[in-house]
Amino acid sequence: MRASDIAVTVPTVTADDPVTQAIRVMAVSRLPGLIVVDNVSRPRMVLPGTQVLRLAVPGSYQDDPALVRAVDEEHADRFWRELGNLTVRDCAQHRAVKPVIVRADATLLEIAALMARQHSPLVAVVDDHGVLIGAVTLERLITGLAVFGVGD
Amino acid sequence: MRASDIAVTVPTVTADDPVTQAIRVMAVSRLPGLIVVDNVSRPRMVLPGTQVLRLAVPGSYQDDPALVRAVDEEHADRFWRELGNLTVRDCAQHRAVKPVIVRADATLLEIAALMARQHSPLVAVVDDHGVLIGAVTLERLITGLAVFGVGD
Repeated sequence: MRASDIAVTVPTVTADDPVTQAIRVMAVSRLPGLIVVDNVSRPRMVLPGTQVLRLAVPGSYQDDPALVRAVDEEHADRFWRELGNLTVRDCAQHRAVKPVIVRADATLLEIAALMARQHSPLVAVVDDHGVLIGAVTLERLITGLAVFGVGD
Repeated sequence: MRASDIAVTVPTVTADDPVTQAIRVMAVSRLPGLIVVDNVSRPRMVLPGTQVLRLAVPGSYQDDPALVRAVDEEHADRFWRELGNLTVRDCAQHRAVKPVIVRADATLLEIAALMARQHSPLVAVVDDHGVLIGAVTLERLITGLAVFGVGD
């Protein structure tokens, strides 16, 4: 089996979309992460779900557990409303991280090793031009593996 | 809202369980990770799904993309059969990593910041004795947040 055999179509966002929309897209589609594409559908970021969530956590709270513990329940429930219209670009860390991508002919082992190494439960599948043609989720990969791994 | 308001009961494994079983438990319950408990139900590891998958990727392939690409499709489909009866303990990295846990009274912001910081879409909720009483998944957290974040 190859990436193209188990890839599925997933909704994407662009860096100009609001973070709130990004989280909503991920939640509604029950995705384990989100692919951020440019205006010609090339993946620019492949964010694990926890890092999509991170976009919504105000910077001052991200690395300061003591400060976070001091926030009362009412404010803690509403922290993401502080986001307003901030976009994915506004909130993403400006590190040059290579997006987690494979070609359509990648094997299941390649995908598994990549997910494990990059801590990414979502991998974008691209064509020869770097354009998104699908995505492989961790769940889809495990389902694919199970065909061969159990009871044969 | 507090951790206890959104926590759910999840199946767990112990370090003595086979890796294949761990992956199956995670897949069947559609969990984004897995909690490894000791014999009195205290979380010892909280593994993100990608790191549960990593347990199944033979060590020689984990950090060598070129080697992985050289494996043909037939063998790549069956890599996890090499695991045999290896247990979670056999395959886990022997780093002393503190499990990703919160108390029942943790706020949603505390859980969100912890998930983002630890890259863990699963957080174990423990009582005063460190015994597991539930788990919060990223999906459950986002659902909890959405109550307050959208349209009000």
